[in-house]
Amino acid sequence: MKRIIIDVMGSDKGTEELVRGVRLTTEEMDAEYILVGDRTAIEEAAKACELPLDRVEIVHASGVITMEDDPLSVMRTKMDSSMSVGLKLLAEGKGDAFVSAGNTGALFTGANLIVRKIKGARRPALAAMLPMQPPVLLLDSGANVSVTSDYLEQFAVMGSVYMKKMMGVENPRVGLLNNGSEEHKGTEIQIEAYQKLKQNPEVNFVGNVEGNRVMFDTCDVLVTDGFAGNILLKTMEGMGKLMLKTMKKMFFANFKTKLAALMVKSSLKDVKKNFDAGEFGGAPILGIARPVIKGHGSSDAKAFKNAIRQAITYSETDLTGDLTDALSRLSARKKAEKAAAADGQAE
Amino acid sequence: MKRIIIDVMGSDKGTEELVRGVRLTTEEMDAEYILVGDRTAIEEAAKACELPLDRVEIVHASGVITMEDDPLSVMRTKMDSSMSVGLKLLAEGKGDAFVSAGNTGALFTGANLIVRKIKGARRPALAAMLPMQPPVLLLDSGANVSVTSDYLEQFAVMGSVYMKKMMGVENPRVGLLNNGSEEHKGTEIQIEAYQKLKQNPEVNFVGNVEGNRVMFDTCDVLVTDGFAGNILLKTMEGMGKLMLKTMKKMFFANFKTKLAALMVKSSLKDVKKNFDAGEFGGAPILGIARPVIKGHGSSDAKAFKNAIRQAITYSETDLTGDLTDALSRLSARKKAEKAAAADGQAE
Repeated sequence: MKRIIIDVMGSDKGTEELVRGVRLTTEEMDAEYILVGDRTAIEEAAKACELPLDRVEIVHASGVITMEDDPLSVMRTKMDSSMSVGLKLLAEGKGDAFVSAGNTGALFTGANLIVRKIKGARRPALAAMLPMQPPVLLLDSGANVSVTSDYLEQFAVMGSVYMKKMMGVENPRVGLLNNGSEEHKGTEIQIEAYQKLKQNPEVNFVGNVEGNRVMFDTCDVLVTDGFAGNILLKTMEGMGKLMLKTMKKMFFANFKTKLAALMVKSSLKDVKKNFDAGEFGGAPILGIARPVIKGHGSSDAKAFKNAIRQAITYSETDLTGDLTDALSRLSARKKAEKAAAADGQAE
Repeated sequence: MKRIIIDVMGSDKGTEELVRGVRLTTEEMDAEYILVGDRTAIEEAAKACELPLDRVEIVHASGVITMEDDPLSVMRTKMDSSMSVGLKLLAEGKGDAFVSAGNTGALFTGANLIVRKIKGARRPALAAMLPMQPPVLLLDSGANVSVTSDYLEQFAVMGSVYMKKMMGVENPRVGLLNNGSEEHKGTEIQIEAYQKLKQNPEVNFVGNVEGNRVMFDTCDVLVTDGFAGNILLKTMEGMGKLMLKTMKKMFFANFKTKLAALMVKSSLKDVKKNFDAGEFGGAPILGIARPVIKGHGSSDAKAFKNAIRQAITYSETDLTGDLTDALSRLSARKKAEKAAAADGQAE
């Protein structure tokens, strides 16, 4: 049985909501849970939501990393925080996966420095599942503001493994986020990445994907730098909100429109559900030596449950092993290419 | 009376639709028009839409730059194209402004190389009006994939002048598109630009703006590189389409929902109109020595009319003069700062 380490502090909605998420998980999944945070707060929350404590261990941590804290605080000033303590437990093998809905930058930094990277991984990527139909895995979604074409190639390889194993996508289509569909589009980095992705035998590359095509079933994995990835993700989020706001205004205009709203109520719920990122759990940090999942900072119990469930599947299927293998095949190919090029020059 | 040079070739909807746009303009505005393109096609289109030819001059051009053509073709292989001919007429002062709904890259390149830049302009910017309420001027929206912090500062200055003069915004708020709200966010370029914008006395800088805040009245001018700008613009466009598609599906589900659709029909139209970029005309290329406006490639007659109207106002208000003054004040300040810094070092 897998042991999932869970940071129940530092989220926007408070400890009780996260513990309720753990409670929901226990109803669905077979696993053990290590809850890290303020012992009193956890015990109270467990009581409030009737979480059975037989499969739950509480590890007390006196500090909390807030959303405003510097990412490096996880390694420096706040080593007693629930996030730092949880990551150390993971690094020491006391549990099989770690889930946190706290400060993203701190979690990314902590995962890199405390848990460490998979051998051969250049830069781990924060992957986010875009709630499209079918869903699209975006990486990087904000952690690496600058990248190289080699990082992007690794993102493509890791994203493909994830979509295959976790989402059952047979031969995941990989797109490169770009400002046009033609091969020569983008900066030097995109132009180089295009060629590397095209030549990679383990990547099912479908070419450049523009912002207005991402949501129309063009790819399963979308690779980009964290700056553009963040712009894409946030713009989608904002437009979704704007549309709901606009529709609300439309339906509340007068008596007739209010009546119309009642008539489409159930369909409207489906629409909302379709755009709910929480349905897919959290954002995995791919390229870390053990599973680390970032739950959304404003996760409710259900969304947090989905993130924990994802962590369980991640460790049960040994996704890390598959990622390690794929990255090592990639670096072997790179070495062989280099050697061949050197041979070619020597002749 | 202003003379507007209009490229009526190379758009997605064909010459007749564009000529119909000219016809609509003549009903509203006092101006003269030089239509550039295939003479026979123009004459036929003018006849079809009953365009009075008394204020219209036709300049024949035998070639067309297509959407697939290389941007440099405007200066090299297709000097006989309607776009090249029109830009030359503008450069020679035969007209006061130029409008085209053709190939964006070619128009940007041609404007730079044939019409030339305003003195002191580092890089002209392709500005796009995001159809929000209130609207937001995004620059660069796709022409300059890489920028420096100095370019971004110029974009901020030019965008402010535009919003003040063309849209009547008193003290335009300028935001920097970024992956977080904190001062240290983004790449080196954003971090530098943040400081320059903060210190510029002619820019009403409101700080970093994230993708999910752009549409909620946070700024009037949004500066960014053309790569991220294009991602933002296209993602908005795509999400708008997705939402309309989703709503359609919702309303066509069954008899009851179809009835509901009828009941909100007029409000629905308002919603659509709110997200219609064509309402604001075309995209000006700011920083060119004479007014050049890019109409959307799929402009219908009404959207193209708005682009022509914008060109008329642009030249009537001498926006280019204001841009030139603002850029020269900026470069004088930069020189003074440099001199002061050198003095400081010498002491």
